[in-house]
Amino acid sequence: MTPSEHLAELGRDFYRRGWVLGTSGNFSAVIQREPLRLAITASSADKGRLTIEHFLEIDANGNVLGTSPGRPSAETLLHLAVVRTARAGAVLHTHSVWSTILSDYHIGHGGFFIEGYEMLKGLDGVKTHEHREWIPILENSQDMNALAAETSRTLEENPAIHGFLIRRHGLYTWGKDLTEAARHVEILEFLLESVGRRHMMEPQY
Amino acid sequence: MTPSEHLAELGRDFYRRGWVLGTSGNFSAVIQREPLRLAITASSADKGRLTIEHFLEIDANGNVLGTSPGRPSAETLLHLAVVRTARAGAVLHTHSVWSTILSDYHIGHGGFFIEGYEMLKGLDGVKTHEHREWIPILENSQDMNALAAETSRTLEENPAIHGFLIRRHGLYTWGKDLTEAARHVEILEFLLESVGRRHMMEPQY
Amino acid sequence: MTPSEHLAELGRDFYRRGWVLGTSGNFSAVIQREPLRLAITASSADKGRLTIEHFLEIDANGNVLGTSPGRPSAETLLHLAVVRTARAGAVLHTHSVWSTILSDYHIGHGGFFIEGYEMLKGLDGVKTHEHREWIPILENSQDMNALAAETSRTLEENPAIHGFLIRRHGLYTWGKDLTEAARHVEILEFLLESVGRRHMMEPQY
Amino acid sequence: MTPSEHLAELGRDFYRRGWVLGTSGNFSAVIQREPLRLAITASSADKGRLTIEHFLEIDANGNVLGTSPGRPSAETLLHLAVVRTARAGAVLHTHSVWSTILSDYHIGHGGFFIEGYEMLKGLDGVKTHEHREWIPILENSQDMNALAAETSRTLEENPAIHGFLIRRHGLYTWGKDLTEAARHVEILEFLLESVGRRHMMEPQY
Repeated sequence: MTPSEHLAELGRDFYRRGWVLGTSGNFSAVIQREPLRLAITASSADKGRLTIEHFLEIDANGNVLGTSPGRPSAETLLHLAVVRTARAGAVLHTHSVWSTILSDYHIGHGGFFIEGYEMLKGLDGVKTHEHREWIPILENSQDMNALAAETSRTLEENPAIHGFLIRRHGLYTWGKDLTEAARHVEILEFLLESVGRRHMMEPQY
Repeated sequence: MTPSEHLAELGRDFYRRGWVLGTSGNFSAVIQREPLRLAITASSADKGRLTIEHFLEIDANGNVLGTSPGRPSAETLLHLAVVRTARAGAVLHTHSVWSTILSDYHIGHGGFFIEGYEMLKGLDGVKTHEHREWIPILENSQDMNALAAETSRTLEENPAIHGFLIRRHGLYTWGKDLTEAARHVEILEFLLESVGRRHMMEPQY
Repeated sequence: MTPSEHLAELGRDFYRRGWVLGTSGNFSAVIQREPLRLAITASSADKGRLTIEHFLEIDANGNVLGTSPGRPSAETLLHLAVVRTARAGAVLHTHSVWSTILSDYHIGHGGFFIEGYEMLKGLDGVKTHEHREWIPILENSQDMNALAAETSRTLEENPAIHGFLIRRHGLYTWGKDLTEAARHVEILEFLLESVGRRHMMEPQY
Repeated sequence: MTPSEHLAELGRDFYRRGWVLGTSGNFSAVIQREPLRLAITASSADKGRLTIEHFLEIDANGNVLGTSPGRPSAETLLHLAVVRTARAGAVLHTHSVWSTILSDYHIGHGGFFIEGYEMLKGLDGVKTHEHREWIPILENSQDMNALAAETSRTLEENPAIHGFLIRRHGLYTWGKDLTEAARHVEILEFLLESVGRRHMMEPQY
């Protein structure tokens, strides 16, 4: 299975689970490190019908290689920032209801901690539920240069994180390869729903 | 795929997602503009088993053309009002839990704003999450002439909207074609669930 | 399709939707009126794997006809009470989360009204959303004779109802035939979820 | 169907329902009592793609028999404690959102009662909804010897229970065989969601 085939299959599955409705969400995977070659979803691709036709190959500056039609995702610079700063092999951006509302609820503190959950052990390198995971939240912007710079800055200041939220815009996570990145989506979406519902049981919590 | 085939497929998918349970919901698509010809769901069609047999062809006055058995949807006049006033190519009415309860909660203000969500960019012509989308709510009625007139008035007064709610009765949205209208359903249902759950996290919000 | 085949198909679908988990829920359909012959689920049937083998034929007193193995559902007397008092052609008992918790929340008032929802028009004979549907709640009991008598009394005192709840035990609904009864399940489950979530948005509501 | 085939099928189904996302959850079934032989999921198995290749056979001390590659689940000692103390034929550990948040909410009281629900009758030996089921909650730990000892102590002190929670870590349940254990998962997950949502309707409840 090529990276594009794997990404397309993941995308259709994430769509079915309500994590990338409409044309929301975008996905990338490193094809080659030096020089960098990245497979990334084309702009405006409908995630429920994703096929390899909806992927482009780009270089480290986001330029499209070869003769692929279409433009790469508007959020290409964020993917490149994550690949570069976190040394990721794959980057997945989902846009679920829970990531959307928690990114809004906690914006005043710039993020929030998820702590004490066994499921945290599904994140790369986490060995105990006593782990304290910081989930930074970036203010949303349509200026992709600014948002990519903010992404790099956030990753440099928080090298231990496994994902971040953009306000009212969902989740970015990644992994050393696509399998790990996909597991991180599942783990973080579970944790976001859990802390969201936990809060609803006891608002002062 | 004919408009009726496309509508039938959409309808079964919406049913599976809980948006048109029982015989709720109704769908139409423009077949021809001049003179107007519209494919529309028959009255009382079970949306989980929708086939092209459940569609009728009507003219600009809602009269059935040809020898189709059955009556067109009771809400035909609303579809015609939207096609005429919003210059829509397709009109989709869904009836989800979230659209139902939000249409009730906000009735006192005649509607509500959805603002600051990235997903708003899935609506035709919206270029930034900073967009402020007004969702008007119409009081429900069984007088279809009155409700159609109210629909036209609402669309004339709010030319920038992409959908409206009827109190305790769900969502109407549309698009220049069926693909766009279907995307609008998905986007608006996502946004309604998000603002509904966001409110539940913080009732004073 | 025989009544048992239709009931088995419905049961598997209801299971998939979370309405009859484990061995909860039970279903029946009138095969013949005079003398009464009813197809009904066997006791302890797993609803996710329901086949025609899990149905028995019983008479008006609940006696098993023919050589079917197994015992009829423990709630057979309730089905017979509904068939007799409401002149139903089919009786469906589901056990969803929302019916369970609402049956508990409103027990102090013996029931609650659902009013003003367009979806009410999916109930037999209801022509307008202005309809006011009373949902009686019976206290749960393991004494099936007592519960069947209470069922008959409730139906006689409330001839216009389309369903009732048993406390922390779910929903009974019915119809003149199986298609109508199945639609009533879908409509009532939608309405219960809607009023439950509506309440959560505004607890004083 | 061998125990491993049955467990693999159950695991994929539980994954689909959101009860064992990522590599969470683990399952075992007794193959032979004397001397004890247990089939158990391998450590780190992805539950959505579970096949018989992901199961190992172990003895009463948790040693792997034969030449199976991989290590048994990190929670093997807990499975062995349940098999031994509760005389279980199968042990299933799921990790749903509702079990996770309730295990946190009620930790201060060491557990909580579920009482008065008809669905309780789906638990082995329970004949009436008037049953009062105690759900103990164990503090989570990465010390498996300590957690296994705590499991044995909890089962000895509460011989009538059908399951327990580990804080922010999900549900353990079991049965005399795999079919009963699987039914207990379904019943308990339903009850946990019901009491969780019931609480949200009326926080003082």
